[in-house]
Amino acid sequence: MAQAKKLVEAITPMEEDFSRWYTDVVKKAELIEYSSVKGCMILRPNGYAIWENVQKELDRMFKETGVENVYMPMFIPESLLQKEKDHVEGFAPEVAWVTQGGLEPLAERLCVRPTSETLFCDFYSNIIQSYRDLPKLYNQWCSVVRWEKTTRPFLRSTEFLWQEGHTAHATAEDAEERTIQMLDIYAEFCEKFLAIPMVKGKKTDKEKFAGAESTYTIEALMHDGKALQSGTSHNFGDGFAKAFDIQYTDKENKLQYVHQTSWGLSTRIIGAIIMVHGDDSGLVLPPMIAPVQVMVVPIAQHKEGVLEAAAKIKAGLAGVRVALDDSDKSPGWKFSEQEIRGIPLRIEIGPKDMEAGQAVIVRRDTREKITVSLDSIAAKTLEVMETMQNEMLERARKHRDEHTFSAVTYEEFKDTIANRPGFVKAMWCGEETCELKIKEDTTATSRCMPFEEENISDTCVCCGKPAKTMVYWGKAY
Amino acid sequence: MAQAKKLVEAITPMEEDFSRWYTDVVKKAELIEYSSVKGCMILRPNGYAIWENVQKELDRMFKETGVENVYMPMFIPESLLQKEKDHVEGFAPEVAWVTQGGLEPLAERLCVRPTSETLFCDFYSNIIQSYRDLPKLYNQWCSVVRWEKTTRPFLRSTEFLWQEGHTAHATAEDAEERTIQMLDIYAEFCEKFLAIPMVKGKKTDKEKFAGAESTYTIEALMHDGKALQSGTSHNFGDGFAKAFDIQYTDKENKLQYVHQTSWGLSTRIIGAIIMVHGDDSGLVLPPMIAPVQVMVVPIAQHKEGVLEAAAKIKAGLAGVRVALDDSDKSPGWKFSEQEIRGIPLRIEIGPKDMEAGQAVIVRRDTREKITVSLDSIAAKTLEVMETMQNEMLERARKHRDEHTFSAVTYEEFKDTIANRPGFVKAMWCGEETCELKIKEDTTATSRCMPFEEENISDTCVCCGKPAKTMVYWGKAY
Ligand SMILES: [Zn+2]
Ligand SMILES: [Zn+2]
Repeated sequence: MAQAKKLVEAITPMEEDFSRWYTDVVKKAELIEYSSVKGCMILRPNGYAIWENVQKELDRMFKETGVENVYMPMFIPESLLQKEKDHVEGFAPEVAWVTQGGLEPLAERLCVRPTSETLFCDFYSNIIQSYRDLPKLYNQWCSVVRWEKTTRPFLRSTEFLWQEGHTAHATAEDAEERTIQMLDIYAEFCEKFLAIPMVKGKKTDKEKFAGAESTYTIEALMHDGKALQSGTSHNFGDGFAKAFDIQYTDKENKLQYVHQTSWGLSTRIIGAIIMVHGDDSGLVLPPMIAPVQVMVVPIAQHKEGVLEAAAKIKAGLAGVRVALDDSDKSPGWKFSEQEIRGIPLRIEIGPKDMEAGQAVIVRRDTREKITVSLDSIAAKTLEVMETMQNEMLERARKHRDEHTFSAVTYEEFKDTIANRPGFVKAMWCGEETCELKIKEDTTATSRCMPFEEENISDTCVCCGKPAKTMVYWGKAY
Repeated sequence: MAQAKKLVEAITPMEEDFSRWYTDVVKKAELIEYSSVKGCMILRPNGYAIWENVQKELDRMFKETGVENVYMPMFIPESLLQKEKDHVEGFAPEVAWVTQGGLEPLAERLCVRPTSETLFCDFYSNIIQSYRDLPKLYNQWCSVVRWEKTTRPFLRSTEFLWQEGHTAHATAEDAEERTIQMLDIYAEFCEKFLAIPMVKGKKTDKEKFAGAESTYTIEALMHDGKALQSGTSHNFGDGFAKAFDIQYTDKENKLQYVHQTSWGLSTRIIGAIIMVHGDDSGLVLPPMIAPVQVMVVPIAQHKEGVLEAAAKIKAGLAGVRVALDDSDKSPGWKFSEQEIRGIPLRIEIGPKDMEAGQAVIVRRDTREKITVSLDSIAAKTLEVMETMQNEMLERARKHRDEHTFSAVTYEEFKDTIANRPGFVKAMWCGEETCELKIKEDTTATSRCMPFEEENISDTCVCCGKPAKTMVYWGKAY
C-alpha cells in the first residue's frame, strides 16, 4: 500500500493547481510523453487507444452519411497556399517550411499542411466537371502542423492528429445543410460516446476560420469553468471555388461555382475528456470510449483458485473490453493504476467472495461498490457501465448548467467573469470593438452565438447599443 | 456500348507496354490522382479503401501478438538522426528538411521522418528502466517522406503511407524471434488476404536496412516477371541501443542493452495487388481485400420490378460488401466500370432472369457466368468468392513458379535474366563484388537468401568460387 500511495500522491489535487493536475494526469495515466522535438508529443498506447476509439465511431458516423476517405499530400507549395487571400493570412504565420529536399534546395518552398483546404480545392478543380460529379464528400485522417509558441498536451501542440472533411456541393443550400449536419454529428458523438454535453452555435466573424463564410462550433465546459472549442464546421460559400476555379456544368449546361464546407475534430477532444471527467485520483473514462472498460483484480491471488476464478470472470464478459491484472503487484497498487488510467469498472474477486459465490464491481466515477453473484456478473457489468455512462453525462451537464450565468450590465458581466468560472450568457451588438474590449477587460472571448437563443436584454452588455444576438462568453483553452 | 467501349480502350494492353498499362489502371480505376506537389500522390476513395482494409486486417494480426499502437512526431532533429552512423548515412541524402517554423528560422533543422527508428530509440531510452518494462511492442500507422527523383504510383513516391513497428527486447533471441514472427505475419497476410504468394528470405548485407544487423524480406513476382519487395523486418541487435543508450537492469540487477527490431509494410503493396492480379480490362481485386465485393447491376432497369429485384438481392447479401449500380448509365458502361475497378463479382438481374427466378453471377477474374436461383444466391455468392480467392492465389503461385528459373553458369544466368522474366535461383559466394558485377552486367539484384535453401551447385554463379548460399535474383521495382 505504500507503493500505491506513492502513485496517487504524484497527482497534484485539482483545487490546488488545475493546470498541474492536468499535466500530472496526462503523464501518470501514460497518455503522452514529451519528445525531443519542440512542441511535439508522443501519443503512448493508453492515449492512442482512446483516439482509435474516437476514430472508429466517428468514421462510422461519417460513412453513414456518404462520406469517403482519401489521403492528400502533407506538403503544400507556397503558391497554392497563397491562392485564397484570407486563408493564407490566417495560416502563413504559423506554418513550418520545407526548403530542402534530399541534397538540394527547393525551387519553391513547401509548407507542412496546417489544414488542407488548398489541396482539396486543387484536387476538386481537376475532378469536378459536371453536376453528376457532385456532391464530393471526402475526409482524411492525418496529422497537421501549426508552429505554436506555447504548447500543452492534447490542447495545443505543434503537430496534432485530426480528421478534416472537405465537401463540394452544387448549391449554397446543400453546403449549409452539410455544415450543420456535421456539427450535429460531432455534438451527438460527444454526448453519446464521451458523455460531454455541447453548446452548439455559430462563431462571430472575428473568431471564424480563415477563409470561411461562417464557422459553427461545439463548445464544452471544463471542470475548472474554462471553455474548450471541441470541433468546428465551416461553410466556405463559393469563395474558395472562385479562388481555385472549381466550376461544374449544371443541368442547363451552364457553368456554376461549387459551394464548399470543411469540418474537423482533433486529439484536443482527449483533453476535454480529461478535464470534464477526471478527478484527483486520475483519469475517468466514459465506458463507451474506454480502451479497457473493465479491469479484473484478483485479491490474494496466491490462494488456490483465485486466479482461475478471475480468469473465468474475464472470459465470461463477452463483448466487453476486459483485462485481467494478474501481475505480482499488490491489490492496492493495481487499484491505483486502474484508477489513474480511468478504467471505468474494477471487478474484485478474492477467497471470501468465492466462498459466497460473488464478486465486487467498483465504479471508477462514484467508487460505489456493488456486490454481484457470479452468475449474473456479465449482465450486471453491462448494466453498471450503461448507468455510469448516463450519469457521467448528466453530471457533466449539471456542472455545465450550474456554471452558466447571465449578465445584463457590464459590471455584472465583469464581476461574473472574474469570480465565477463558467460560461456567461450576454447580449451583443454585433460589433468587433465590443468583442475586443471584453477580451481586453476580462480575457474572456465570444465562444459562440448559440442555436438556442434567449433574449436576456435588449442592449449590448458592453456598449449598451441595441443587441443583435446572445453570445456565450468565457475564458477558453 | 460506345461509351463503355471507350472506357475500356483507354487502358493500354499489358503486352504492348506493361508500364503504361499499370499507370492506366491506376488512373482509370480512380485509385490515385497526381497532385500539384512533386512526387506526391492523392489516394482517392477507391485506393484509400483498399489501404483501410489492409490496415484493418494487419492491425488485428499485430494486436493478437501483443503489439500496441502509438503516434510519434513527424519531425526528427538533425542531431537525433545523426546518432546512429550507418542509419544517417543511409537516409540523410533522401530526406526533406524543415528550416523555418512560423516566421523564424530554426536553430536546428528538422527532417520529415523517412522512418522513425531514431525517435523510437529516444523514446525507449526514457521509458525503459527494468526488465519488467520489456518487451516494448509498439507500432504506428503514418506517412513518411523520402525525396525521390523518379516516382511511380504506389511503388515509389515522395510521401507514402505505411506502418512501422519498433520493438525492444531483453535478449538477442527474443529480438530475432520477433523479427521472424512479423515477417511470417506479413507473408501470411499477403497469401490469405491479397492472394499473393511470397518468397521469404534474408537480404544480403548490401541490401539490408541502414543500421540493421539483418533484414528479412518478402518478395513477390509481378505479372511482367519483375520482383517487388513487399515488406521487410529488421533485427537491429543492440547497435541502436548502444548509440542511444537504451539500457535496463536485469533480474540480477545488472545493466544490459536492449535488442531491437523494426518492420514495415506500405501502400506499395497496392502496387503488388495491381501487378499480380490485374488484366487488360483493369484491376482485379481478391474478394477478401476488395472494398466492394459484389456489384449488383440491373438489366433493363426501367422495366417493372427490376430495380426492386436488384435491391432485394443486395439486401439479402448479409455480411457481404455489396453495392447496387442503379445509375442511369447503360449496363455495358456499368460492366466496364465494375471491371476496371476490379470488383470481384457482378450480379446481373433482368426481366428474363426474374421470370426464371434466377440471376447471373459473373466472376471478374475468369469472367465465368454462373446462373443461380434467387433463393440460393447468398450462399452461392459466398461460395464463388471463396473459390475465386483460392484460385487467384493458385494462379499467382503457378505464374511465380513458372517464372522461377535456375542457373549454374554465368552464361546461363545472364541469358535467363535477359530473356526469361522472373526469378533466377543461383548460388553465391557471399562477396559483394559478385553482387555488384551481376547488377552491372544484368541490372538484376539479389532479392533474398530464401529460408528454403536448395543446393543448385557448389560454386558461385558469378566468380566460380565456393558457394555459401542460394540467392533469388531478379530485376525489381
Ligand atoms: Zn456592443
Ligand atoms: Zn562470387
